[in-house]
Amino acid sequence: MEVHAADQYLLAEGERGLLEVYAALEGTGLFPPFPPVELPGGVGGLVERGGFAQTFFFPAEVLGVAFLTPGGLRVRAGGVVVKNVQGYDLVRPFVGSFGLLGRTLEAVFRLRPGRASAFLKRPWTGGFPPFHPLPRFLFRLWDELYAFHFGPEGEVARFREAFGGEEAGPLDLRPLFPRGMGVGEGPLEDLRFSWADGAPPPTVPPAFRRLVEALGG
Amino acid sequence: MEVHAADQYLLAEGERGLLEVYAALEGTGLFPPFPPVELPGGVGGLVERGGFAQTFFFPAEVLGVAFLTPGGLRVRAGGVVVKNVQGYDLVRPFVGSFGLLGRTLEAVFRLRPGRASAFLKRPWTGGFPPFHPLPRFLFRLWDELYAFHFGPEGEVARFREAFGGEEAGPLDLRPLFPRGMGVGEGPLEDLRFSWADGAPPPTVPPAFRRLVEALGG
Repeated sequence: MEVHAADQYLLAEGERGLLEVYAALEGTGLFPPFPPVELPGGVGGLVERGGFAQTFFFPAEVLGVAFLTPGGLRVRAGGVVVKNVQGYDLVRPFVGSFGLLGRTLEAVFRLRPGRASAFLKRPWTGGFPPFHPLPRFLFRLWDELYAFHFGPEGEVARFREAFGGEEAGPLDLRPLFPRGMGVGEGPLEDLRFSWADGAPPPTVPPAFRRLVEALGG
Repeated sequence: MEVHAADQYLLAEGERGLLEVYAALEGTGLFPPFPPVELPGGVGGLVERGGFAQTFFFPAEVLGVAFLTPGGLRVRAGGVVVKNVQGYDLVRPFVGSFGLLGRTLEAVFRLRPGRASAFLKRPWTGGFPPFHPLPRFLFRLWDELYAFHFGPEGEVARFREAFGGEEAGPLDLRPLFPRGMGVGEGPLEDLRFSWADGAPPPTVPPAFRRLVEALGG
């Protein structure tokens, strides 16, 4: 793993844990584009599923990827400079491709600064309310709504006040998904999907299937 | 063209002009992800080149595209809901593919609200200074720096003060590019490229070439 604090990015191998990334960033005042929650497959699993719990456009936070296609081809896409990924973009189709384009070898995440952060939970009452300020991450786990936010001190204080609830700590959700994290009715839900153990990935559109075939062999 | 003001998106055919889009949005208080500048190829040309003058991540503002591949295949990707484009993403590789994946039939742009807007210019002194607030669009044309910003009234007023200069009006830059808008030393420059008449597109990485071949036939 490489933390480039001055340039606000981090390079992590696909097998790194998400909480390992948090540990590597401790004291830097920088945050990755995921909450302090351990999920199946670590960094690689997260990128292949298209992120977790974000309320922003996750793919834009992945500056680059290196991946191994099902046919054994190594592909390196994007880089550490945003400029590079605004044309001929193979990073974005890989993010959220649920492993169809291959397995993550490395990912480069944009880091964002926060002088404060807060991880809170409160009882789930159905639906994700439109908070102001909107926390960067929101998810339901069983019958509780969780939110994680970071940013300027005043903004995080306003988030605490708006959200209420009580403190949450880093979570390890891997035991919920012994057969893998798929899309279906389950104990975990974010703005994109409800996540269920051993459930399949979302249905693949035909045009995307062609892309898979192109990179697969 | 379809303006969906309540849902903050717009659908435009590829051949529509960029200033035509501005005209369609007049009075809505909503803005597209490009400045009031006419460029070669209108909406389609803009999407294929990956945007113009933006200081944000342009591909995320393109919610969907329909395109015709060089081999005559019609591909529809993404949609009007952000959720749909965060997995199996063929929108992002199309945006900025410089026509290699085909020609734009339709594009769906996210619209963003602004109670005020300002289009300003001032003499170019070399380089793009780090303005606060950062205007949404910045470009050099000949020996002048142009900036367009929209947003809350107070923020636009602060932009005016920080930028200085004088008022600019909508521009038609098509006469600068009778042979098409390519990447090279020229009279127009944004944060990504210097744009030159008749110049080639950026070099294509090998992995992206495979994607082109997959969708081309």
